[in-house]
Amino acid sequence: MTTEKRTVIYVSDGTGITAETLGNGLLSQFEGIAFRPMRIPFVDNEEKARDCLARINEVGQRDGIRPIVIMTQTNSECSAILHQADAYFIDLFDAFIAPLETELGSKYSRAVGRSHGHANPEYNSRIAAMNFALAHDDGVSDADLKNADIILVGVSRSGKTPTSLYLSLQFSLKAANYPLIPEDFERGHLPSRLQPYLHKLYGLTIAPEQLHRIRTERRANSKYSSLENCRYEVAAAEKMMKREGIKWFDTTAKSIEELSVQLMQELNHER
Amino acid sequence: MTTEKRTVIYVSDGTGITAETLGNGLLSQFEGIAFRPMRIPFVDNEEKARDCLARINEVGQRDGIRPIVIMTQTNSECSAILHQADAYFIDLFDAFIAPLETELGSKYSRAVGRSHGHANPEYNSRIAAMNFALAHDDGVSDADLKNADIILVGVSRSGKTPTSLYLSLQFSLKAANYPLIPEDFERGHLPSRLQPYLHKLYGLTIAPEQLHRIRTERRANSKYSSLENCRYEVAAAEKMMKREGIKWFDTTAKSIEELSVQLMQELNHER
Repeated sequence: MTTEKRTVIYVSDGTGITAETLGNGLLSQFEGIAFRPMRIPFVDNEEKARDCLARINEVGQRDGIRPIVIMTQTNSECSAILHQADAYFIDLFDAFIAPLETELGSKYSRAVGRSHGHANPEYNSRIAAMNFALAHDDGVSDADLKNADIILVGVSRSGKTPTSLYLSLQFSLKAANYPLIPEDFERGHLPSRLQPYLHKLYGLTIAPEQLHRIRTERRANSKYSSLENCRYEVAAAEKMMKREGIKWFDTTAKSIEELSVQLMQELNHER
Repeated sequence: MTTEKRTVIYVSDGTGITAETLGNGLLSQFEGIAFRPMRIPFVDNEEKARDCLARINEVGQRDGIRPIVIMTQTNSECSAILHQADAYFIDLFDAFIAPLETELGSKYSRAVGRSHGHANPEYNSRIAAMNFALAHDDGVSDADLKNADIILVGVSRSGKTPTSLYLSLQFSLKAANYPLIPEDFERGHLPSRLQPYLHKLYGLTIAPEQLHRIRTERRANSKYSSLENCRYEVAAAEKMMKREGIKWFDTTAKSIEELSVQLMQELNHER
């Protein structure tokens, strides 16, 4: 029996997140093929490897076609067991670790998931950055704006919150964000508490039509979500950012990943 | 002149996040070697590829040792230009795309960053999940708990918020969280609004000593942060979760990635 979807199994002795991230990037290149993802994480001893081997083979039997296994596995005994499966393997460590050992003149240390965890100072700074982003979301607090790495401004629902959180989680950046509201436009100047931080302010803007759609989901038939008001707010915000010399980005057709990487380039923030 | 750090350059025609995620996983395996990361994203035409080539070679000159380039590049002309650099290449698309074409019987579509973007329904569901997590953080709102995929409970600062946000961003899961507070322990039962959702409640717990450290950073010398109170709250929360049959996880030595993947396994949530 064949199936219309090709099963992709992410296998790892850790979380499998590295394998899955790569898999999403690779497989999205193949249009017109539907994939069914499956995850088998924490395969970190030979017994689990044998169970995993059996599950991979079962999937192949069920599908009538061998599954694709995308794998990070630092334990060579487990790896050898898993490779007995009837599957198409994309083995990240096999492909890259051995050659890297030669290049670096160093043996790898077989440490699962060393790139995240409490013992790792970088991990703790990511969590601290996320807490900062949450505490400084939407102008809730300006207690610590001087310690922000970046402050995003823009009208409500222009994408500030998801971008701030992504910047914190992915790049350990302390990202605050501050809404531009009609009162600011009437006053004709930026909120005064932002004035000292012009050098780290970046703006987000968005097409009024898309803003209207997003706000309508939140609060339909209100002044807040009306297309007319969205047009007014976006124009007023862009005018203000222009006058203050704040560089801004249009979020209409960008993912938070793309936006975050562009902001990182602006900051020239090379860790 | 040589330097003590080995430069790693993430090069991509997209954001480079896939390359960087893989790089973090691979390089963390080499203890005792310090790496200096650098990002060159959005290299999506031949002119940018030539600029990038020059920058890679400059870094090698400066460092006195060739840099490591970890690359996702779907444009073969750009790829050919970049490969002229004097660098050690880890080329994800070269290594995997061509063999995958054979396996899948399909040509790849050279689509940069197809895995995220507004046109992609999966992208929109991730952003919706993040908004859900924010709206249902820390018991702020219980408006929509019936639509939550998972509800995390635990004492203040046990790790609920970062885990909820990570589940939403990485797995598009609608994750709510709800604090267990001393009033709940005195009443001797779960907040009544959670009662209908026992089947999707999971608990987080944490070593009292670590909770004490985390809370002290927030509010030093308070009853809230005292070791004695932390011990009391953790014991009372665990007792309550046990009585209610809520499965819980200890966050003390786990990263949010590990925790999230374990919770996904519990939910058997295979997209």
